[in-house]
Amino acid sequence: MSTPASQQPSPQLFFQTMNAHQRTEALKAGIEFEVFTAIGEGNTTVAEIAKRCHASEKGTRVLCDYLTIMEMLTKQGDRYGLTLDSSVFLDKHSPAYLGGAVEFLASPMITGGSKYMVEAVRKGGTAMPDDGTIGPDNPIWVTFARAMAALMDLPSQLMAKLVDPNADRKLKILDIAAGHGLFGIAFAKNNPHAEITALDWKAVLEVAKENAQKAGVADRYTTIEGSAFDVEFGSGYDLVLLTNFLHHFDAPTCETLMRKVHAALADGGRAVTLEFVPNEDRVTPPDAAGFSMMMLTSTPSGDAYTFSELERMAANAGFSRSTLHPLPPTIEQVVISEK
Amino acid sequence: MSTPASQQPSPQLFFQTMNAHQRTEALKAGIEFEVFTAIGEGNTTVAEIAKRCHASEKGTRVLCDYLTIMEMLTKQGDRYGLTLDSSVFLDKHSPAYLGGAVEFLASPMITGGSKYMVEAVRKGGTAMPDDGTIGPDNPIWVTFARAMAALMDLPSQLMAKLVDPNADRKLKILDIAAGHGLFGIAFAKNNPHAEITALDWKAVLEVAKENAQKAGVADRYTTIEGSAFDVEFGSGYDLVLLTNFLHHFDAPTCETLMRKVHAALADGGRAVTLEFVPNEDRVTPPDAAGFSMMMLTSTPSGDAYTFSELERMAANAGFSRSTLHPLPPTIEQVVISEK
Repeated sequence: MSTPASQQPSPQLFFQTMNAHQRTEALKAGIEFEVFTAIGEGNTTVAEIAKRCHASEKGTRVLCDYLTIMEMLTKQGDRYGLTLDSSVFLDKHSPAYLGGAVEFLASPMITGGSKYMVEAVRKGGTAMPDDGTIGPDNPIWVTFARAMAALMDLPSQLMAKLVDPNADRKLKILDIAAGHGLFGIAFAKNNPHAEITALDWKAVLEVAKENAQKAGVADRYTTIEGSAFDVEFGSGYDLVLLTNFLHHFDAPTCETLMRKVHAALADGGRAVTLEFVPNEDRVTPPDAAGFSMMMLTSTPSGDAYTFSELERMAANAGFSRSTLHPLPPTIEQVVISEK
Repeated sequence: MSTPASQQPSPQLFFQTMNAHQRTEALKAGIEFEVFTAIGEGNTTVAEIAKRCHASEKGTRVLCDYLTIMEMLTKQGDRYGLTLDSSVFLDKHSPAYLGGAVEFLASPMITGGSKYMVEAVRKGGTAMPDDGTIGPDNPIWVTFARAMAALMDLPSQLMAKLVDPNADRKLKILDIAAGHGLFGIAFAKNNPHAEITALDWKAVLEVAKENAQKAGVADRYTTIEGSAFDVEFGSGYDLVLLTNFLHHFDAPTCETLMRKVHAALADGGRAVTLEFVPNEDRVTPPDAAGFSMMMLTSTPSGDAYTFSELERMAANAGFSRSTLHPLPPTIEQVVISEK
């Protein structure tokens, strides 16, 4: 982290950062105009892209140049092209298209917190009304369930294979804050003996049930409506899934929930937590560590927890042992806590 | 620009870009809380920084970690430190402190255009009312003149030395859209025989006159109030300065102005243009090329012009020859056009 003595000070990073908000807007504009899809279809000059996207040639040229500077497009002479990432994730004709995630990631409920970052830093939690994203029945989670499913397809499959590699025995699984339902559904697809109980707000569960139907596992899919902190879980579960959930709450709240999870597990059962897990230094790896800022600005007391913090919560809740498992190529990790 | 065949697609850049707006807010928050100044004073733990900055410890920890991830702070154990750039540009005790520039760079008039980027791309110019930043007497230019002066101290000195290296003869200089006035003032400080006429909106000239007074050159400093397109320039100038001005207008408008500049110059006089000049590919170097996006979103028809475009405007306006001069370490360049 030290600076070589030979280096000259430069205001470049200051300017780039002051203008970083333009990058977010340019990506959103590129997706909204379907610039990536247009180029994937073979429209590669400014004139061709502008026509396909119903935009001005001037605006198209500036946007495409800016996306090239952002390394989301390539440019050779007067022709633009897609990068590998853009062709896979930003072209609507790609099965891995992620553009829909913008509806969640750029929603006022998520970006709004960032606008009041100063107040959030001052008080130590979101400055948005009604507890930010975690208020009861917040409609943002229906948006989330619809917008983020495509993104969770790969991680959910990787997690099911990590946790249930043999897929040869009956598993009773509780999927807490199921959202789109993809994590529970991946276990059900991976193992024909798995039975899933999905828990979330009622409106969100409608999305999960649709996805279970599409995946052909609806006959092994039941639901519990309400808050994970209030409703009865039932008991005898082999696995309880906590995917992208704990980061919304403070450590004592997480521990309270983990105690309830512990009680709902059968002997030998496991809690499976998917999280952004920073290293103990809290500043690496950058994407997982940086997630703490989104929790600061959008929740009253959420955080990105280190493994030692997650381990302590589980231990305090009665779990005998927790282990950390990377889930490449995703930036999240899995913590398996044994009853 | 080609992607190695071995590379795996990753949504990492997509996520980082969707969250890039957080970087702008975090830098603004760090400056507003004086985090960099606090650390420079020796407050290096979360508790010390939080106390000095009147912020919560949780918020301070998350902000400082995020600024570390952004490479604007360092972290060793539980102690934060300043990078070279942060110590020079973001600590209020540094003579090169740039934090004041936030007032301009983060002002609604500048960032507001970015929020309507989709509409700007569609129409090919700003979607803000009243022509964005270039409407008559827009108060943003008083903010600019006050906020950006510190930033222009070095470039203005470099430009004066580049254009008038010997500083040994009488020079009559017109400084168009003078703003803070620093460019003209630098010529006056560099050469005791230089006489400056600064042109800008009346309210903006008050700032320039203050700066000329502070620099001790007020006795060689006169002003012309109004729009560069409307007022009389006078004649017989040795130099006409056009610093960060042409990018606000389309090429025909720039040419019209250059013709007026040409007429105001003495024989052998020179027009001196300071600009963000992209290479002919329009996507390198990234900072100069990316400036076109700010002009698209904040002006009706401005742009970042390549040297060949600037050369053509000058030639069409009657100049015999234009030459391009980098101004390191700044990202801008100087075009000298000879009458």
